[in-house]
Amino acid sequence: MTTNTFTDPPVEMAKERGKTQFTVRDVTNFLNGGEEETQIVEKIMSSIERDPVLSVTADYDCNLQQARKQTMERVAALSPYLVTDTEKLSLWRAQLHGMVDMSTRTRLSIHNNLFIGSIRGSGTPEQFKYWVKKGAVAVKQFYGCFAMTELGHGSNLKGLETTATYDQDSDQFIINTPHIGATKWWIGGAAHTSTHCVCFAKLIVHGKDYGTRNFVVPLRNVHDHSLKVGVSIGDIGKKMGRDGVDNGWIQFTNVRIPRQNMLMRYAKVSDTGVVTKPALDQLTYGALIRGRVSMIADSFHVSKRFLTIALRYACVRRQFGTSGDTKETKIIDYPYHQRRLLPLLAYCYAMKMGADEAQKTWIETTDRILALNPNDPAQKNDLEKAVTDTKELFAASAGMKAFTTWGCAKIIDECRQACGGHGYSGYNGFGQGYADWVVQCTWEGDNNVLCLSMGRGLVQSALQILAGKHVGASIQYVGDKSKISQNGQGTPREQLLSPEFLVEAFRTASRNNILRTTDKYQELVKTLNPDQAFEELSQQRFQCARIHTRQHLISSFYARIATAKDDIKPHLLKLANLFALWSIEEDTGIFLRENILTPGDIDLINSLVDELCVAVRDQVIGLTDAFGLSDFFINAPIGSYDGNVYEKYFAKVNQQNPATNPRPPYYESTLKPFLFREEEDDEICDLDE
Amino acid sequence: MTTNTFTDPPVEMAKERGKTQFTVRDVTNFLNGGEEETQIVEKIMSSIERDPVLSVTADYDCNLQQARKQTMERVAALSPYLVTDTEKLSLWRAQLHGMVDMSTRTRLSIHNNLFIGSIRGSGTPEQFKYWVKKGAVAVKQFYGCFAMTELGHGSNLKGLETTATYDQDSDQFIINTPHIGATKWWIGGAAHTSTHCVCFAKLIVHGKDYGTRNFVVPLRNVHDHSLKVGVSIGDIGKKMGRDGVDNGWIQFTNVRIPRQNMLMRYAKVSDTGVVTKPALDQLTYGALIRGRVSMIADSFHVSKRFLTIALRYACVRRQFGTSGDTKETKIIDYPYHQRRLLPLLAYCYAMKMGADEAQKTWIETTDRILALNPNDPAQKNDLEKAVTDTKELFAASAGMKAFTTWGCAKIIDECRQACGGHGYSGYNGFGQGYADWVVQCTWEGDNNVLCLSMGRGLVQSALQILAGKHVGASIQYVGDKSKISQNGQGTPREQLLSPEFLVEAFRTASRNNILRTTDKYQELVKTLNPDQAFEELSQQRFQCARIHTRQHLISSFYARIATAKDDIKPHLLKLANLFALWSIEEDTGIFLRENILTPGDIDLINSLVDELCVAVRDQVIGLTDAFGLSDFFINAPIGSYDGNVYEKYFAKVNQQNPATNPRPPYYESTLKPFLFREEEDDEICDLDE
Repeated sequence: MTTNTFTDPPVEMAKERGKTQFTVRDVTNFLNGGEEETQIVEKIMSSIERDPVLSVTADYDCNLQQARKQTMERVAALSPYLVTDTEKLSLWRAQLHGMVDMSTRTRLSIHNNLFIGSIRGSGTPEQFKYWVKKGAVAVKQFYGCFAMTELGHGSNLKGLETTATYDQDSDQFIINTPHIGATKWWIGGAAHTSTHCVCFAKLIVHGKDYGTRNFVVPLRNVHDHSLKVGVSIGDIGKKMGRDGVDNGWIQFTNVRIPRQNMLMRYAKVSDTGVVTKPALDQLTYGALIRGRVSMIADSFHVSKRFLTIALRYACVRRQFGTSGDTKETKIIDYPYHQRRLLPLLAYCYAMKMGADEAQKTWIETTDRILALNPNDPAQKNDLEKAVTDTKELFAASAGMKAFTTWGCAKIIDECRQACGGHGYSGYNGFGQGYADWVVQCTWEGDNNVLCLSMGRGLVQSALQILAGKHVGASIQYVGDKSKISQNGQGTPREQLLSPEFLVEAFRTASRNNILRTTDKYQELVKTLNPDQAFEELSQQRFQCARIHTRQHLISSFYARIATAKDDIKPHLLKLANLFALWSIEEDTGIFLRENILTPGDIDLINSLVDELCVAVRDQVIGLTDAFGLSDFFINAPIGSYDGNVYEKYFAKVNQQNPATNPRPPYYESTLKPFLFREEEDDEICDLDE
Repeated sequence: MTTNTFTDPPVEMAKERGKTQFTVRDVTNFLNGGEEETQIVEKIMSSIERDPVLSVTADYDCNLQQARKQTMERVAALSPYLVTDTEKLSLWRAQLHGMVDMSTRTRLSIHNNLFIGSIRGSGTPEQFKYWVKKGAVAVKQFYGCFAMTELGHGSNLKGLETTATYDQDSDQFIINTPHIGATKWWIGGAAHTSTHCVCFAKLIVHGKDYGTRNFVVPLRNVHDHSLKVGVSIGDIGKKMGRDGVDNGWIQFTNVRIPRQNMLMRYAKVSDTGVVTKPALDQLTYGALIRGRVSMIADSFHVSKRFLTIALRYACVRRQFGTSGDTKETKIIDYPYHQRRLLPLLAYCYAMKMGADEAQKTWIETTDRILALNPNDPAQKNDLEKAVTDTKELFAASAGMKAFTTWGCAKIIDECRQACGGHGYSGYNGFGQGYADWVVQCTWEGDNNVLCLSMGRGLVQSALQILAGKHVGASIQYVGDKSKISQNGQGTPREQLLSPEFLVEAFRTASRNNILRTTDKYQELVKTLNPDQAFEELSQQRFQCARIHTRQHLISSFYARIATAKDDIKPHLLKLANLFALWSIEEDTGIFLRENILTPGDIDLINSLVDELCVAVRDQVIGLTDAFGLSDFFINAPIGSYDGNVYEKYFAKVNQQNPATNPRPPYYESTLKPFLFREEEDDEICDLDE
């Protein structure tokens, strides 16, 4: 029996869907956190899908200018929700919408999270009320941006060179850009939209430098959008992705703002120039934590979208055949294709567990901090504890942010390659998806810098443990004794499939790495200062962060499965085992050298990964359907729900590029003169004539 | 002493350049293959740089329509060289130009390499002459494309569904697209430019299917560029990258072509419908080998461009500081930054050695094949040998193509991340560079498919060796005995820095992997057929291809260093050692389980990589200057030769985005109505009135 390449796919998709052995809705609810959450999610998704302004159907053909305008229209359509959404709804909406439209998500979040978040987090309650009244929360006659980064300074807040000098005579601050290197750069919303910014600048009072603080600086006159005196703004122009975001640069030439525009929840400046430093240093990075926590969730959402596309396509695309078959083989049936995608599907599930945990901690911590008054001496202890917890969250979220954003970039890329040439088409979303995504690996904490700083924190925690002091819950395992003793005889198959063993194996690997690095550190600080010693151990710190974070994701995954309904548990367990065993495969060097596993175990693990891939393979349609994405959110014809990939892809290409003329627009001007050109054959002067 | 962030960089660049301990020109000549080649390279580069049509200064802001037109203008400017360039010049020109303009490079090469290459390789000498006379080589009234891929079939040539049915009455072939799934898809040049194509179609004569063959099919009438009867063409539209290439789709509805348009160097069809099959099967993939070999060289060229940008930037960018310093630290001085970039610089050098070897073999082999007549029985043996050699080259180049194109993608990505936010700017080239590049991992042999097929070949070679038969030179080491015997005491430092030891270590690792996989294969074929057995061993085949290819790159690098001038040898050796030791670090699992190295050796290797990074660090400006790229070819202000990165970057952004109006173009239509909107507060109907 032969097949018709064109009509076969939807038939196959129906068959594949029929193989599902569990109630898809149960997995959806497990991922969302319950039926009630699923209903919220569905309501938000349908409100996005219904709004014609938010239709992303033609987005892949937008050029930069069109994208900027369209994104503004979408910001306008979504702004009313900023006022009515609860915190939870707001997070869901941003994450779900971000899956298909990162530009709008960013452009809104610059105002809503970075600007408003800064005023709420670094301003006093009175200041917050004042800016709300001005229109900041309602986004009326008002749009805020976040002027932190400078041309010459990114991650290093202390190095920022913009100055805010107090002038006591006028009771004003003078905001100034001392040279072009201190130009505010990358400022999303500055080029086109913003009326105000939160500006990070060095506070200078009576000649003394008090470090970087936040100031609200008006940029444009509200009535006609003209620039305020002394403010220069330009457009940063083309970026790798997120064309819809109007990133700009800002220079301040002695711009005067009232003293009251300095955000004074922590440090304060009086009208006589007295600087009061708070009991605890300002959490200037407060507004950045929400971003970081959101990026872990985004990693899950974006990954799930692209995995759905690649796995659906793999279930209907045929290529080559094995001898004896009359039909070509579906690419999902090639063991190597399974190995490329199925561990990543498992990884994606694991990301959600990590994201949920981080988000929960963040909401609790923020609520606690905002309920406290940093200037009330009676609350000093509570505040101290809350700030310590925030710092710990900041550190823990660092590794998660780094590895999930990298993981998502890898997933988009691998999924694209798994779709062959069609992955390179603009209409299947991978190109824009990748270009829009990868800035997450750089902004709000460069991933490498985050990992190194987390690695430093892990060594410091280990030193605490060795000194018998208390450390946070997620790191306590470093002080435990390993329960694994490898006698060289190898590990039985049942153990290699046991969650307890796998978690313990990763903890042992992570613990040994951290303790070995700590040993080396203690050796080095005998002759070096701590900074130098940590620099010497950069590679080791990075590895510590990497393995600890992987360990954390694996443990969280297993822990959450314990709460799942019985019918889906075995399927989730397979995914978690696949994730854990594949993670070992990726790091065999560590497990061998730590004597956690034998070479024979590694062989066995290779086979188990193969087996688990086969076991998961028939469930991939169910496991991706469980993400609950309509074709609107998939926005890629080769990832259509019904599997009718060629028809929808062909239709999409032709809808976006109607074939009206066999001649290109430049036929007369360029192509024809080229094809019909004639070089003159110059006669040679005959010297002998 | 404090520094001025803005003016510091060029001062620092001059100092860094001053640290160079070797004659840069010597390394340039080493890379190019001698002073004579360097002069050729420089002449071509300056001819590109001088031509205003080829200026890429504004490319990053081009939209798709502009890119298509501009690319056509560039094709026109470069076409005369197709006639005058020798093979060598043509390769250099394509590779050098491709570094900054992949679209033009591709659009030209579709005609010149794929179309012309097919006619030369698969047509008879008479057929080639005929098409030359028609204007094919002069590109006059003529533009060719390569209609291979179909919507439903990519890599699997045998699965293509377009038919070429011989009609004896008219002595014609009827070319037909049986259903939409067989639509020719991705065909570069089809949407706008081409008058003719080489079409891959199933040859059917008197009802019998003779497999896929090549046919020249006219697509458009030359005089007015209108479509030929029965030809439908559409535009594929937006792609991830290479916007300047007019990829299209083609459907044939019983299009008639003369029998003489079938390319008949191998199989022939007579006017009575007699099919003569050649002594050896057609090398249909002949035209693809040039592409594959070129892609290895491209990997080097593109990698060197982005490494130059990231390393120059790293030498002038400061961020954070170590305690005690008054200036912030240059990012190149962070050990982790060195580890991120310097092994990749070494990798890039290694790619060039691999590329040179592949190119040399390819030119020799092609010349030999073209000199032979496949229908002369006396030449049968020579032809057989030449075809076998081509097949061997095809197999060997598979792994090199796969791992160098992936390597280059990784290098672009890592370099972008190493430039922080400025790496995400459109004007520093990484975004377009990556998007344009990564199709190389998919086309002309999907990298994963190539690796699996190479892995199969390696196992087959091992079986030959075990049976005492002859195999190609590059694989003979698999039959040797390892000279490494690890007694568990560890490896002395001098050994770990010795080329002989490192090559042998990689050969042992590769040999053991291949032999272990071969053992498993022999076990499996007792109960499975060979195809099934190889499928079971997919992961292992991939690993065999990966480690063998790395081994090959490392050996080639050391072998070439032997030919280098004495003053540069020590610097090249450091790079090669860095590449080899870093490669071990990336694969410690294999070296430990094969008992080639001990855990203690791995620790030592970590330190040696650190040491080598420090040793190479001061030479990075010299080692990247040696690539000989002017700022035109760098095309990224943060990678400027003079290090004046902020001034040039600021100027570029403002030149491309002049700040003329603080209001965006959509202020009146969209932004103002949004900022000044008023929701109506509906009064509530009072029921009690």
